[in-house]
Amino acid sequence: MNTDEHAIRDIVARWHSATAAGDVDTVLGLMTDDVVFLVAGRPPMRGRDAFERGLRGLLAQHRIESSGEIKEIGIAGSLAYCWSELSVRVTPISGGNATTRAGDALSILRKQADGSWRVARDANLLVQT
Amino acid sequence: MNTDEHAIRDIVARWHSATAAGDVDTVLGLMTDDVVFLVAGRPPMRGRDAFERGLRGLLAQHRIESSGEIKEIGIAGSLAYCWSELSVRVTPISGGNATTRAGDALSILRKQADGSWRVARDANLLVQT
Repeated sequence: MNTDEHAIRDIVARWHSATAAGDVDTVLGLMTDDVVFLVAGRPPMRGRDAFERGLRGLLAQHRIESSGEIKEIGIAGSLAYCWSELSVRVTPISGGNATTRAGDALSILRKQADGSWRVARDANLLVQT
Repeated sequence: MNTDEHAIRDIVARWHSATAAGDVDTVLGLMTDDVVFLVAGRPPMRGRDAFERGLRGLLAQHRIESSGEIKEIGIAGSLAYCWSELSVRVTPISGGNATTRAGDALSILRKQADGSWRVARDANLLVQT
């Protein structure tokens, strides 16, 4: 496994652990300013600020646990993609039933000037299970 | 627009026109052998042969019309992604109501040894409208 692939696997792992810890700032540091999240049935969510509002709103009342398996990483120069199978469990802090979503995600990552990688585009195919 | 971006736009345009014409062989020539199609709520469809069976089965009884707008193309070396907004209309040949699906798609393309580009991975976020 080369340095770039290792760095991308590390981003995915940190995304899961920081989300579970409610560490929004760390999650935001793993994506580009102009990140776009694509989800079925909704308009694209454009930009890190929009994602931050959504995540902080969700974490105010929920705990998020996610896990996944990286199925494939492809890299060329400063562009990469990562195909993952994910499972996300959202539990109301006040009690009540958790909801679980599972499925595939296809992410585009861009290498930054400092050599780090960030998620730039993300297609989320998860459905409620 | 450089040569690679032009070639990728041409693939998208030919995908639409060949599908509408029922020209399955041309559509199959636009993807890699190991292509993977990701759709919400279903296991990944792996390989050109699986796609061919699905498309021939659908076209045996339906007409497919699709259109779309390319929102973005990103290229680095032999790897590219293409984000599109698509609309697909499937009409039974025997009559009956057409169904329409619309939404985003995120595709990964790989440049082949001969310089041509092919779709290698595709995340389809279209929902019924």
